[in-house]
Amino acid sequence: MLPTILDLSSLRAAYAAGMTPIDIIEAVIARRAASKDPAIFITPTPDDDLRAAARALMANAPEPNSLPLWGIPFAVKDNIDAAGLPTTAGCPAYAYSPQRDATVVARLKAAGAIVIGKTNLDQFATGLNGTRSPHGAPRSVFDADYISGGSSSGSAVTVAAGLATFALGTDTAGSGRVPAAFNNLVGIKPTPGLLPNTGVVPACRSVDCVTIFAATVGDGIAIRHVAEGFDAADAFSREAKPVSLPVSGLRIGVLDGAEREFFGDASVERLYDQAIERAKALGATIVPFDYAPFREAAALLYDGPWVAERLAAVEGFLATNAHDFDPTVRAIIEGAKGKTAVDAFNGRYRLEELRRKTELEWKKADILLLPTTPTTYKVADMLANPIVLNGRLGRYTNFANLLDCAAIAVPAGFSDNGLPGGVMLVSHAFTDDALAPFADALHRAAASGMGIDRNAVLPETSRVVVPDGGLIEIAVVGAHLSGMPLNHELTGPGGRLVKACRTAGDYRLYVLPNTTPPKPGLVREPGYKAQGLEVEVWALPADAFGRFVQKIPSPLGIGKVVLDDGSSVSGFLCEAHAISEAREITDLGGWRAYLGSGR
Amino acid sequence: MLPTILDLSSLRAAYAAGMTPIDIIEAVIARRAASKDPAIFITPTPDDDLRAAARALMANAPEPNSLPLWGIPFAVKDNIDAAGLPTTAGCPAYAYSPQRDATVVARLKAAGAIVIGKTNLDQFATGLNGTRSPHGAPRSVFDADYISGGSSSGSAVTVAAGLATFALGTDTAGSGRVPAAFNNLVGIKPTPGLLPNTGVVPACRSVDCVTIFAATVGDGIAIRHVAEGFDAADAFSREAKPVSLPVSGLRIGVLDGAEREFFGDASVERLYDQAIERAKALGATIVPFDYAPFREAAALLYDGPWVAERLAAVEGFLATNAHDFDPTVRAIIEGAKGKTAVDAFNGRYRLEELRRKTELEWKKADILLLPTTPTTYKVADMLANPIVLNGRLGRYTNFANLLDCAAIAVPAGFSDNGLPGGVMLVSHAFTDDALAPFADALHRAAASGMGIDRNAVLPETSRVVVPDGGLIEIAVVGAHLSGMPLNHELTGPGGRLVKACRTAGDYRLYVLPNTTPPKPGLVREPGYKAQGLEVEVWALPADAFGRFVQKIPSPLGIGKVVLDDGSSVSGFLCEAHAISEAREITDLGGWRAYLGSGR
Repeated sequence: MLPTILDLSSLRAAYAAGMTPIDIIEAVIARRAASKDPAIFITPTPDDDLRAAARALMANAPEPNSLPLWGIPFAVKDNIDAAGLPTTAGCPAYAYSPQRDATVVARLKAAGAIVIGKTNLDQFATGLNGTRSPHGAPRSVFDADYISGGSSSGSAVTVAAGLATFALGTDTAGSGRVPAAFNNLVGIKPTPGLLPNTGVVPACRSVDCVTIFAATVGDGIAIRHVAEGFDAADAFSREAKPVSLPVSGLRIGVLDGAEREFFGDASVERLYDQAIERAKALGATIVPFDYAPFREAAALLYDGPWVAERLAAVEGFLATNAHDFDPTVRAIIEGAKGKTAVDAFNGRYRLEELRRKTELEWKKADILLLPTTPTTYKVADMLANPIVLNGRLGRYTNFANLLDCAAIAVPAGFSDNGLPGGVMLVSHAFTDDALAPFADALHRAAASGMGIDRNAVLPETSRVVVPDGGLIEIAVVGAHLSGMPLNHELTGPGGRLVKACRTAGDYRLYVLPNTTPPKPGLVREPGYKAQGLEVEVWALPADAFGRFVQKIPSPLGIGKVVLDDGSSVSGFLCEAHAISEAREITDLGGWRAYLGSGR
Repeated sequence: MLPTILDLSSLRAAYAAGMTPIDIIEAVIARRAASKDPAIFITPTPDDDLRAAARALMANAPEPNSLPLWGIPFAVKDNIDAAGLPTTAGCPAYAYSPQRDATVVARLKAAGAIVIGKTNLDQFATGLNGTRSPHGAPRSVFDADYISGGSSSGSAVTVAAGLATFALGTDTAGSGRVPAAFNNLVGIKPTPGLLPNTGVVPACRSVDCVTIFAATVGDGIAIRHVAEGFDAADAFSREAKPVSLPVSGLRIGVLDGAEREFFGDASVERLYDQAIERAKALGATIVPFDYAPFREAAALLYDGPWVAERLAAVEGFLATNAHDFDPTVRAIIEGAKGKTAVDAFNGRYRLEELRRKTELEWKKADILLLPTTPTTYKVADMLANPIVLNGRLGRYTNFANLLDCAAIAVPAGFSDNGLPGGVMLVSHAFTDDALAPFADALHRAAASGMGIDRNAVLPETSRVVVPDGGLIEIAVVGAHLSGMPLNHELTGPGGRLVKACRTAGDYRLYVLPNTTPPKPGLVREPGYKAQGLEVEVWALPADAFGRFVQKIPSPLGIGKVVLDDGSSVSGFLCEAHAISEAREITDLGGWRAYLGSGR
């Protein structure tokens, strides 16, 4: 029996238990046929093509779960190429038949995933609401009066309605996050350039991102890992340079004062406050910051020169097919026509000045916690006031790509009216992996289910743990302990105290003669038994750790030290010759005790 | 007796020998008065102000050479603010009196340097030839018929004529390098953003760089270290992230085939070929590369949208003062008037596509060695054909800032007609320090003197040695030796073999039991005497070194190993307990010999 939401863990478990991709695809076909929202797909993959894809997978890779996304159904926003299905960008006259998959689609297919169709969107990905399409407006899975959010409207709904495990969106102003909030989903918005845009219809080519809608953060990250990676064919693709975040004591920046704007929607504001409380309960330090420079940068996306990128993307088509555009989309794009190259460079200067101001705010916080959207609207209201209300939806999302951020949108619970709200965790470029553990923890703390299933319990197997690749732990025993003369060599390059503990019992400690400042020597002697010695475990970035090791004078060195819990970390060792005439202080239990002993 | 060229080493030596800043300033005043080129300065610092500055320095810092640039005279291009002197950018109607120094000038003054005047330039730094100024055209110090190069024309001539130790220029298209070539000087063009532009009249604000003209690479680097550093007031300022280059076996990329263009100037081509031969003699591997994508990127600077930055910089002034412009400069800037924001973004896309192509070429070479200019011209010829001939001068310089490169221009000797030629070393962003040792070695190998003094010998004290900050050396003794099973842990992350040698004589070597692959243990025993043990010293970037150390299993670790030349490097050590029952193989002299011994 399949669950309502087809999250990755559930499908993998189903496959492990004997279900086949054919079974899953038949279920998807049945669910798709039963769907009450007629606006989700622009081009669904035909039933028989889906069945053929499942059979082909089973022929090529018969072993269940033998590929990372073996038999996983996914939907593709219709501005991303999937060979065999037309790409329309929500504008039928613009349609073309791509000969090959977009790079991200090709990678996902190669990993075993199966495309269930091309989804509806705000035309040319211009909008955050989902109503700007000749194919109708998809609706929030929670209330058909309400917008689904956009521009990746159909993609979000497929996942939230249980038609697909994940879906690809795109995000320039917030299109990969706003629909996640309105459908109780996770929206993974990678650092710009991390996922290639080859085979994606550009909106603002310099800041467009492919995104992933998923039921859990863990699912989204696992899928992103398959889709990401440098692509020489995309001029804006970048090599990932993962950036770590502190492993404990995270500082979370939150809205303050006049920048707290929900356009009168007290229910969404309450969800935001609850998310802040959850972050605090998870051990984060809550820090108010000034959102103003982020808001001013955000305004450049539509009010500044970047709208000219949208014009650059469709200029030729607009010249011949102006009447084929959605009127609102056309008005926005044509707004770029008067803008000069001087305007473009002046906009760039303004952005760099604002970036400088945001850097001061980033000094206060490791991660920003923001409402994904300040409120939501009914379809009828949005259609009546399409520019102003859409602008409000992007209040907290528009800055992220211009300022080169990674973001993850997670569910934050439900308002009294039964509509979900979301919050975003935003940080520097290439914190994509580093953001995930906290985003996942915050999502789990909200206990709001997955997609349309408010009561679903998030699977343990999709839990995201703190990655171990970023920081290197080192056990220090003497002059580098907190408060000691060389502790600055750890704190200076960004080291963080992980814990204070003891070594295993078979270490002995000596006072090294002729060292400045005074230093101890730690020596292991298998078979020896004492109480273990006081150490502190610190975490350092790899380059800082390298320079730290480089500075250590003879007779000390860095090897592996076994701790009292049996684990082993890098730590200080001492050459044997240096202790031949050194005084032993093992009985004191540590360097700090020795210094206090007056010996 | 002062030398003709006032290089940093000579002045410091003079100060150490008892001369005072007053003496030097009087010499500068006398030389300035005797100069035969009337076009060097726009506003020289008045004689009495110079004397007052020297006296103030001696009052505030009486000890000779007690500041990094104690009593060092320098000139400032007149698009860079120096308080007390007007800034004109070569356009008298544009003049203003800055209340404060540009950030770079303030830092240099604080280090003890003294401003001798504001120098002539191609108006608004728009040009590479030096003739586009109402103050006349400075001339090459080697022939008054020939251009000085520009736009930093007067700055280069002050240093080459022995009026100043160094001078500040700016460089957008090549203005900090072309005049260096024409005056037998070094031109330091930092990575964009390394030197702040606060207080500098913009040309193309997104790519402008402050540069340094100096007699030697060592001088230029020492001065750059004083002037550089993040400045929050400049939106384009960047935190330096030094990038290292290989310490040996440099691959030097050189022009090939049709991209070898000297516009018929065989003498400059010969100088280029000689520079290539010198690079080879210095141990570099010469690699032809395709310059085409660099040339195409270069073309964007004037033929693409970036010229709109020049318009953005002076738009208001141009509207009211069009007749105050140099006609050529005005024509160039007004050429931006028709350009649209769409053009600007399309230009950005083209640049990113070309950047991608250049990345393939960068895989072939660590550093590009290019002619600084392909030829030179007489002032009369330049005035007769100002756009076309100027364009030729920038053939090899225009790409560097658009493609985010660091560059150092160095002298390459003299043509038969007595005019100097130059070559450039160009590499990735933030290789500024890493480029310097090879640039200095190439300059010294040219033996072309300094500035106007063709026979000057470059002082040994200004020699640039390979920086030790970038790479960390590690001595390996066992499974990490070349050809051994774990050698890939060094080569994988970019490690380079520095040398094979032996440890000092007081080390003993053991076969560690139960290790896979088999590993030795190296233990120091002071007083023990043997022949030393075979080791290899490898160099790794700090982060790779950190991860390398992190992976080392117990009982091994990294401490300091003393080599047979008495030096000490990071290297493998072994915990004492592990050798208590291990077999000693010290007599075999190393791990390789042990493996070959069949023992």
